[in-house]
Amino acid sequence: MDKIKHKILVLSGKGGVGKSTVSSQLALYLSHIGKKVGLLDIDLCGPSIPKMLGVENKEVHKSSSGWIPVYRDETQNLGVISIQFLLDKSDTPVIWRGPKKNSMIKQFIEDVCWGELDYLIIDTPPGTSDEHISVTEALLKHNPDGAILVTTPQAVSVSDVRKEISFCKLLGLPIIGIVENMSGYVCPHCSECTNIFSSEGGKLLAEQTNIPFLGKLPIDPYLTACSEKGVNYFKEYPNSSTLSALKTFVETFEQQNK
Amino acid sequence: MDKIKHKILVLSGKGGVGKSTVSSQLALYLSHIGKKVGLLDIDLCGPSIPKMLGVENKEVHKSSSGWIPVYRDETQNLGVISIQFLLDKSDTPVIWRGPKKNSMIKQFIEDVCWGELDYLIIDTPPGTSDEHISVTEALLKHNPDGAILVTTPQAVSVSDVRKEISFCKLLGLPIIGIVENMSGYVCPHCSECTNIFSSEGGKLLAEQTNIPFLGKLPIDPYLTACSEKGVNYFKEYPNSSTLSALKTFVETFEQQNK
Repeated sequence: MDKIKHKILVLSGKGGVGKSTVSSQLALYLSHIGKKVGLLDIDLCGPSIPKMLGVENKEVHKSSSGWIPVYRDETQNLGVISIQFLLDKSDTPVIWRGPKKNSMIKQFIEDVCWGELDYLIIDTPPGTSDEHISVTEALLKHNPDGAILVTTPQAVSVSDVRKEISFCKLLGLPIIGIVENMSGYVCPHCSECTNIFSSEGGKLLAEQTNIPFLGKLPIDPYLTACSEKGVNYFKEYPNSSTLSALKTFVETFEQQNK
Repeated sequence: MDKIKHKILVLSGKGGVGKSTVSSQLALYLSHIGKKVGLLDIDLCGPSIPKMLGVENKEVHKSSSGWIPVYRDETQNLGVISIQFLLDKSDTPVIWRGPKKNSMIKQFIEDVCWGELDYLIIDTPPGTSDEHISVTEALLKHNPDGAILVTTPQAVSVSDVRKEISFCKLLGLPIIGIVENMSGYVCPHCSECTNIFSSEGGKLLAEQTNIPFLGKLPIDPYLTACSEKGVNYFKEYPNSSTLSALKTFVETFEQQNK
């Protein structure tokens, strides 16, 4: 943990706001620009990171100094740890109550040989329960940068982010900012961008709560297709608005955290 | 519990597949056709049912025989129970570990005065953990009809439903069938329906696993708008494909469970 420069937790109160998409795209973008990145998936019941990165059939190995992450390619720029790699079959459910989940998460934080990393991105399940309390408590010992809160523009999701903000404040975890995901949909037929899930919720919330707004990511059907095939979206679509939003975020973050 | 004819659990491995939307629309549709319905929201960390039904500012009361549900209107055809009604402020987070959640859920199953009901719909958080184990164990004592599994057509979500299927089999909870939600988006500009999240995943999964396919629900921007305003979508849009999908499901279910 001590050889990791930045440690970022990706949170959202609500499921399905594209938290895992945001986490994996951020990790992919960082490795794409030459950073050493680790992506830790602590969603124990519904791990989706391995599938999104096209590494779901790989296995994790244990060395004398801990677990060795699964690397996406031979550059070893992007390592992944997920419970998925420890399951026999991809449809095996993890039917665990809290205490078992907590001990797994502690191992994920303490017992992985990440080596030297520029960034560790931690993707979480929805909510503010066992996984979140355990990972936050374990991470606070290692001086994390803080949490990125993901929301959609829809009001229901925004009210869940308010809970997440209170959660961070109560536990003493700094908040890096809010990302508004699934902000509009560009119809491939008429190129008209419509707000499927109403609009501007995340931006307004950021203003109201005085938390930095990190940007908007639109729904991009090509992004889904690329993630499921394990293709590098940034190479395929170098002019996408997703790429420019991630670029802006990372540049701002690095400037503020030199 | 014994005065409740049908007890249905709504599950999904993945968050954000619109499980709460499916639960609340099913409950609204059933009350719209004159059934007595209870909607129990056991998502303790991210309860969204009260907001979706426009009752988020109401309070729940306790009588000598248990909690009295919050009714949507004076007909008392649709009663709701959610942790949201027990919180002081809508942005208070519920930072509870497993055991506390389990005892709350047991109370929700045993200590609510629903009265006579045609249907009790139980909306769950994403995953296969404490909430799901507790509610399933408590419900199995009362002879439930089973679970509706909600998925989106996207492959990541489908693999989570496979886990949910294994979960139901392991715990002995019958599966009523699979609903494919967010199946295509009708662009309001050009009326062209595109598959935002790839297509047919839920239907294929139902065929592969030999589980009944209960139908597809498209993304409908009007449905989101109506839910947030607490407006009856079925009265506003009597010709919607959402309404006809729900009608087909309820008619088939009632015929099979006379």
